Amino acid sequence: MSHFKLVKTCPHSQARAGELVTSHGIVPTPAFMPVGSQATVKTLIPEELQNLGVRIILGNTYHLYLRPGVEVVTGMGGLHRFMAWPGPILTDSGGYQLFSLSPLCKVVEEGVHFRSHIDGSQHFLSPEQVIALQEKLGADIIMTLDHCPAYGDGLEVVRSATERSHRWAERCRQAQTRQDQSLYPIVQGGTFTELRRHSARTLASLDFPGYGIGGLSLGEGKEIMLAMLEESLTELPLDKPRYLMGVGSPDDLVAGVARGVDLFDSALPTRVARTGALYTRQGRRNIRNASWQRHDGPIDPGCDCYTCRTFTGAYLHHLFKAEELLAYRLATLHNVRFIIRLMAEMRQAISEGNFPSFSQDFLASYQPTDEEVRVEQKQKWLRSRRERMNYKEA
Amino acid sequence: MSHFKLVKTCPHSQARAGELVTSHGIVPTPAFMPVGSQATVKTLIPEELQNLGVRIILGNTYHLYLRPGVEVVTGMGGLHRFMAWPGPILTDSGGYQLFSLSPLCKVVEEGVHFRSHIDGSQHFLSPEQVIALQEKLGADIIMTLDHCPAYGDGLEVVRSATERSHRWAERCRQAQTRQDQSLYPIVQGGTFTELRRHSARTLASLDFPGYGIGGLSLGEGKEIMLAMLEESLTELPLDKPRYLMGVGSPDDLVAGVARGVDLFDSALPTRVARTGALYTRQGRRNIRNASWQRHDGPIDPGCDCYTCRTFTGAYLHHLFKAEELLAYRLATLHNVRFIIRLMAEMRQAISEGNFPSFSQDFLASYQPTDEEVRVEQKQKWLRSRRERMNYKEA
Repeated sequence: MSHFKLVKTCPHSQARAGELVTSHGIVPTPAFMPVGSQATVKTLIPEELQNLGVRIILGNTYHLYLRPGVEVVTGMGGLHRFMAWPGPILTDSGGYQLFSLSPLCKVVEEGVHFRSHIDGSQHFLSPEQVIALQEKLGADIIMTLDHCPAYGDGLEVVRSATERSHRWAERCRQAQTRQDQSLYPIVQGGTFTELRRHSARTLASLDFPGYGIGGLSLGEGKEIMLAMLEESLTELPLDKPRYLMGVGSPDDLVAGVARGVDLFDSALPTRVARTGALYTRQGRRNIRNASWQRHDGPIDPGCDCYTCRTFTGAYLHHLFKAEELLAYRLATLHNVRFIIRLMAEMRQAISEGNFPSFSQDFLASYQPTDEEVRVEQKQKWLRSRRERMNYKEA
Repeated sequence: MSHFKLVKTCPHSQARAGELVTSHGIVPTPAFMPVGSQATVKTLIPEELQNLGVRIILGNTYHLYLRPGVEVVTGMGGLHRFMAWPGPILTDSGGYQLFSLSPLCKVVEEGVHFRSHIDGSQHFLSPEQVIALQEKLGADIIMTLDHCPAYGDGLEVVRSATERSHRWAERCRQAQTRQDQSLYPIVQGGTFTELRRHSARTLASLDFPGYGIGGLSLGEGKEIMLAMLEESLTELPLDKPRYLMGVGSPDDLVAGVARGVDLFDSALPTRVARTGALYTRQGRRNIRNASWQRHDGPIDPGCDCYTCRTFTGAYLHHLFKAEELLAYRLATLHNVRFIIRLMAEMRQAISEGNFPSFSQDFLASYQPTDEEVRVEQKQKWLRSRRERMNYKEA
């Protein structure tokens, strides 16, 4: 079973540098996990991920359960071997996907009835089954099934979902049979301060080896997100890893680390890369803009990634305009490297005792993507996913 | 300027092993050029191409002229630097694309009026302009502008197009100002024996440094294609490289080499890869078929490519079913490696004097894709390209 070691704590903030020791390797924290929902970090091969400095990736139980099916992955020797990734993996339980991707999902105390977003077929998953699936996939860290309310749900709905998530967390632990996987529960509580604290306190009392913080970055805005994160973290033990789920913009990563988060995952860096949005220290740049057409230099002169070392902005601009598949790959390489380097720089700053000044410098030069644009983009993406669901009514 | 050296000739067939020496490196022949029409061999980076054993790639004047524009490429230091490919490049003149891709193309003696398949804009290119464009792109080998008739055109139409191609070849040579690029004309003549011979004889008499053979593999069927190839080759000088344009199925490559072809290009291996059609010594296999769902071994056990060394058929099947971008990349890697290895094996067989038995063994085990299926697939692809043209009428 993996364990967590705190290496250094920032004296001026809650930031921490640590080490997550798993049977597939050590992960220096704070760490970012690129998302490989369908057993692939889109466009990249495992070797590239390693060269980018990626130490742990995320897989998704919901996606793998539906396709190719967990039995297929097990038949190939488990998720590590199936996707040829030798390092640590964390699988999400699929709770979030059940509520955001599946059409017609219905929660009962026993579990979740839902339809596949791929073909509309009907399914049921209980907390126990989700653990069994994750044991078959064989990730190093697995997550409990949670009931993730939508942003905007009222207090009673969120309270009920949160309490259910706690009961399911207990059931997940009871169902666990493998000793070599660490099981993290997920703090919920929406944007209700008391519920957030209650959720974190309840789960902390159950003494898990690490804690997920879920239900954030769903449209509530940055300020509320960070306030809720703080409420959650206050109640969690200092000696256990804290994983902020689904958060991944550069400014949010810095803000999260400053508040004591150790692990992050988000599809954002890879998803926006495929739209041509590339990270620089000054903020996101859209390579599709005409201003790049004759740009005879790398996208980000300070960047050490393969894309920046090899190609001009003009070339990338051309690939995006021509809708060439290589565009998505080169952009993904760049964004993942940007995020991984940012995590490494934060870790170093913590180790050297100057995290506050690093954080201040970074946030002073990094222009975050406009909040409204972000929310709009995310909603658009979720809509387009739903529209692609060509399932048939039974 | 590049030159060609014959290293070994097969005593039992017309097959030859040679060396094409260019200012960007030596190309052992027979050689296959992966197609990078838009300054990228789809999904792959230059380093991967080199690791696959690729020694020369093809760019396309028509595509680069329309997007990003030749001036943009020139501004970035030419095509080699633009796409970061350090090895030899051959650019096609765009003749074939003008006639197959452009809607509303009109030939006059001066050149070709056509519309962009991207935005419907109107353009005109003369043989002289095509040379000027190729001089700016800076490839090692460039091609004359040809008038490529469609399969099925009658004798008089083909004769007229062929004679015009000859006059244009002369004009191209007159227009050439750079001495470091080799200019090849293109043999036409459709499926008319006498015209084929006449075209090859005429161009041979003009003493170019190499010869393209065009207007084949357009739906005429394998037997006729090979007969026309033979007619063309008969009239071409033995000491100059012969380049069979647009031919790339494994069995056609073997048949072409046996008849004395030195260079080939085709989008086929990369295009079919993206549909899930993967080469094996027994023929093409469709990885999307359900039979691969639980295949716990490489697609092709004898293959030394990264894909086969790293992933199971089940994983590739999953990536294709999930429409993951990595699928197209891994399949492309495999098919290009298959073709490049085949070329290397043929060269070795020629050098060792056993090409006939190699060729016989290969063709005995390789099951070609059904002719009808091939033609149908090609027509479907051409139609889908035309349908994607969302140009506006002026």
